[in-house]
Amino acid sequence: MPSTNTQAQAAQHDSKTKLLDAALYVIRAKGYSATRVEDICEAAHLTKGSFFHHFKSKEDLGLAAAEHFYAMADGLFGQAPYRSLPDPVDRLLGYVDFRKAILRGELPEYTCLLGTMVQEAYETHPRIREACDRYLGSHARDVEADIAAAMASRGLRPNLNIDWTAESLAFYTQAVLQGSFILAKAQRNAAVAADCLDHLRRYLEMLFPPKQTPAASQSQPA
Amino acid sequence: MPSTNTQAQAAQHDSKTKLLDAALYVIRAKGYSATRVEDICEAAHLTKGSFFHHFKSKEDLGLAAAEHFYAMADGLFGQAPYRSLPDPVDRLLGYVDFRKAILRGELPEYTCLLGTMVQEAYETHPRIREACDRYLGSHARDVEADIAAAMASRGLRPNLNIDWTAESLAFYTQAVLQGSFILAKAQRNAAVAADCLDHLRRYLEMLFPPKQTPAASQSQPA
Repeated sequence: MPSTNTQAQAAQHDSKTKLLDAALYVIRAKGYSATRVEDICEAAHLTKGSFFHHFKSKEDLGLAAAEHFYAMADGLFGQAPYRSLPDPVDRLLGYVDFRKAILRGELPEYTCLLGTMVQEAYETHPRIREACDRYLGSHARDVEADIAAAMASRGLRPNLNIDWTAESLAFYTQAVLQGSFILAKAQRNAAVAADCLDHLRRYLEMLFPPKQTPAASQSQPA
Repeated sequence: MPSTNTQAQAAQHDSKTKLLDAALYVIRAKGYSATRVEDICEAAHLTKGSFFHHFKSKEDLGLAAAEHFYAMADGLFGQAPYRSLPDPVDRLLGYVDFRKAILRGELPEYTCLLGTMVQEAYETHPRIREACDRYLGSHARDVEADIAAAMASRGLRPNLNIDWTAESLAFYTQAVLQGSFILAKAQRNAAVAADCLDHLRRYLEMLFPPKQTPAASQSQPA
């Protein structure tokens, strides 16, 4: 009996994940409002009975999809090779390079579920807006940690020798990404998004000068 | 009789403009898919009969709204004070300052109809996507003209002393704007968008060094 229970629980977990994965694709393909529960079920090859076993409503699914998307992204970025670079500036530039490298496949595969949902639902679905804000903010705070470390390593201090903050720069990186996705959708081409990330990288390189190597330091007049 | 005809034409023109203005607000408030013809009529204080006199369908309205939005923006930017600045770098920075200055009022008043529509409709409504791409591209080309002049005035030449183009930088400015609107919607606050425009301005200032004044030139060693 315990074994059967466990199998049933595993199957339910599996069907919930299938519905969430389907939601990620369908909502990114046609937007939140245009997505019907039937579309999700069809994409997941599951019934509406299964859907309503796991979710009370489309909005509940939207909230769970936002969490699912964030958890996936968090895992992806957390385990990316650039995370282990010792210099925080290298990690920051590595993040931009990584975001550029994953502009692959179809638009619903690389664009952002959170940006897509909040764009249209910010006014009509306060819980969706709040979830998108929370997860966009959480990701920005991860980027902000590297920016703060990069600022410390280069001696950049707000209100002292710079007129910007780690937080504002972190959100700026996210604005560039979100806007790049919109242009990629308009042009049906990731190339414009890649060009935008090149500009973002150039800006970051200008803000954070290369670390002086011991040889470079020694070559300066005493 | 000609006078009555003219009055009737004026009334029709007026009702069409009311529907288009209503579309601009309603679509920017709740997105394209969630917007119903009834919502537009209610906001315009007009009947569905009037709507279908002017537009065959919601998609037809969406296309006309995109054109209407672009024409409005084109007039607004074309007549803005920064347009008459003699230095193209000043015009470019003036554009960013102007975009920051018009982050006023409610989100549906300052966000972009084109970015909102293409975000959700790019896959399901090819004509909407194509219109958004055309008008976003037209606006970017106006910005590109100032960027190209700014590059010429500062001796910046792609593949010679820089590795970017006027076109890619023009689209980058639009990506920052579009992404800023998404963050403003998530946070329900224009402050984050203003901070992003400050970062964009800082990048442009770094790319385009100030023009040497005659006095500054003279002070350099011969």
